[in-house]
Amino acid sequence: MVSLLTIDFYQRKGWKRLVTLVEIAKKLNLNVSTVSRALSRPDMVAEATRERILETVASYEYRPNSIARSLRKGKTCTLGLIVSDIQNPFYAAIVKAVEGIASGHGYSTVVCNADENPQKETEALHLLSEMKVAGIIHGSTGANLHILQSLSRQGFPIVDIDRVSGLTDADTVLVDNQAGARLAAEHLLELGHTRLAVITGPQHLTTGRDRLDGFRLALSAAKIALPDALVHIGDFREGSGYEATVRLLGLSSPPTALFVANNEMAAGALTALRERSVLIPDALSLISFDDVRWAKYLEPALTVIAQPTEQLGTLAAELLFERLSGRKEVVRRVLQPTLITRGSSTPPREIAVADA
Amino acid sequence: MVSLLTIDFYQRKGWKRLVTLVEIAKKLNLNVSTVSRALSRPDMVAEATRERILETVASYEYRPNSIARSLRKGKTCTLGLIVSDIQNPFYAAIVKAVEGIASGHGYSTVVCNADENPQKETEALHLLSEMKVAGIIHGSTGANLHILQSLSRQGFPIVDIDRVSGLTDADTVLVDNQAGARLAAEHLLELGHTRLAVITGPQHLTTGRDRLDGFRLALSAAKIALPDALVHIGDFREGSGYEATVRLLGLSSPPTALFVANNEMAAGALTALRERSVLIPDALSLISFDDVRWAKYLEPALTVIAQPTEQLGTLAAELLFERLSGRKEVVRRVLQPTLITRGSSTPPREIAVADA
Repeated sequence: MVSLLTIDFYQRKGWKRLVTLVEIAKKLNLNVSTVSRALSRPDMVAEATRERILETVASYEYRPNSIARSLRKGKTCTLGLIVSDIQNPFYAAIVKAVEGIASGHGYSTVVCNADENPQKETEALHLLSEMKVAGIIHGSTGANLHILQSLSRQGFPIVDIDRVSGLTDADTVLVDNQAGARLAAEHLLELGHTRLAVITGPQHLTTGRDRLDGFRLALSAAKIALPDALVHIGDFREGSGYEATVRLLGLSSPPTALFVANNEMAAGALTALRERSVLIPDALSLISFDDVRWAKYLEPALTVIAQPTEQLGTLAAELLFERLSGRKEVVRRVLQPTLITRGSSTPPREIAVADA
Repeated sequence: MVSLLTIDFYQRKGWKRLVTLVEIAKKLNLNVSTVSRALSRPDMVAEATRERILETVASYEYRPNSIARSLRKGKTCTLGLIVSDIQNPFYAAIVKAVEGIASGHGYSTVVCNADENPQKETEALHLLSEMKVAGIIHGSTGANLHILQSLSRQGFPIVDIDRVSGLTDADTVLVDNQAGARLAAEHLLELGHTRLAVITGPQHLTTGRDRLDGFRLALSAAKIALPDALVHIGDFREGSGYEATVRLLGLSSPPTALFVANNEMAAGALTALRERSVLIPDALSLISFDDVRWAKYLEPALTVIAQPTEQLGTLAAELLFERLSGRKEVVRRVLQPTLITRGSSTPPREIAVADA
């Protein structure tokens, strides 16, 4: 059993752990290898002896090191979750949903925040790989495909959530972003708007691209022009929503309706509109992706495209556990967003006046 | 070098890694131990040989396993951060601030969500201990003192953030919660309110206790009674704020002013007030702890006690790095919250009417 002890020595908490094993053995007048075996292969130790050892171990607060064990077995009971922005309540809700499923399977979840920064995502992927997490749920920044492929080859199951990383053997859970953006555009078109603007996210992200595409398609189907000046590409963060809105309001002919492709940029848009006393919905109808909590508390409350956030997180975790249970084929699930009409979207003023 | 190889064997990615070392050695016609040494003690290998080895290693995408290394050194370049509720934007802001400092020191941050659940906190503490994080920043659920003491004895530096865990050798970064609650009460008293209610958090948490104490002290100093019916103990989550508000509104003589001790419960209070069409501030003045983003977007905007959230996170991380650099004495930093007066707090109606 020398090799096993050697492992214990190096892989548990250094010498201290070995001392603890030795101490326990001494105290019980047993061989150290018996103590070690009682912890690693309890079925090989007589029940009475095992009981005595486990009791003593408990009294020492000795806790077998699951990461050390996992280095032999090759995995831990931990899921890694990389979110692209922890301050976005959309991702906080996903963390919660993933944890709910993971903890039902006896797994812990560690969260890394890529902060929309490819370099931080790189570090997070390396860290989770070194932790030997059982699998990774990954809201991609759009970079690091190379590392993802390498992790996948090493046997880490990976689930893409919300955004497609490009990894062909990852399971994927997405919202139909194009359909969501189409719903938003069609709602504004039905209200009678003809000068519509959009603030979308980065075009290397599926979310940013699909939300622009859906919006464009709906306008094109309705034969409404979408001039370049009314299309802004932000970075899904508050500041870019603010800046794009300021530029839209500065146009000689500003839009009468604005679709913002996530809640963070919508918060920025709101700040710009308040600062300039632009009345919603009188002067500008506003609709945003994401039904975050504060959307319904605004005055007027915000019309939104709601994503089934909890379901996204739950499904992603379930797909990961299916993989861990042996499923081989790649699964892609696309969930449908819904339109929630509230006070921030009305017919444009000229139509409302003509109606009156 | 056999023992070193043994470590590599067990601590890197199992047999595969050994095979990789052997492969590299074969390819370069070198001894395996030379390859191993070039990775672990490069100064002991001739430069030309080292260069050849490192080049080949790079071509294999071989990456030394920092957790395995850390098992020998006894620490990783990773901080563990336990937040008590990831959906609370207060903690999301703290995550971001901690990450900022950590990444400046070349450290990664992993986040665990205790979800206000002592059992999840237990799991998170064990997980971080097994990961051998360099240190732990900990927003306590108020439980697990026993485990914290054990981790501290094992040499994990621990910083309490926002809430006191009871661990005497932890550094602590807090907001002066009593002062914050006093500010809130004094503001409402100055407006002329005499029937004030409070919804606070669990009394086993310093935040819940101190925010009630501060409120009570200010009322007592002003010789204003605080009957039990106007004091509600929630759990810092949205639902409890909702329920407490419903009960307050059901009183034969409801309060004219309400102080809610965090933003999550304030969101619940708002829902209850909206559902029952209770006008803010006409029928009820509202003030909440935490200047979360949506507070200023409400109509009327919410009067709040703002916490220096970013500074809390930054300081906590800085204290942890000071510990890692050798500081021995225990440090406790208490930051001051501030009152931000907005539209949700006005004189009670009878006074406003009398003034007119």
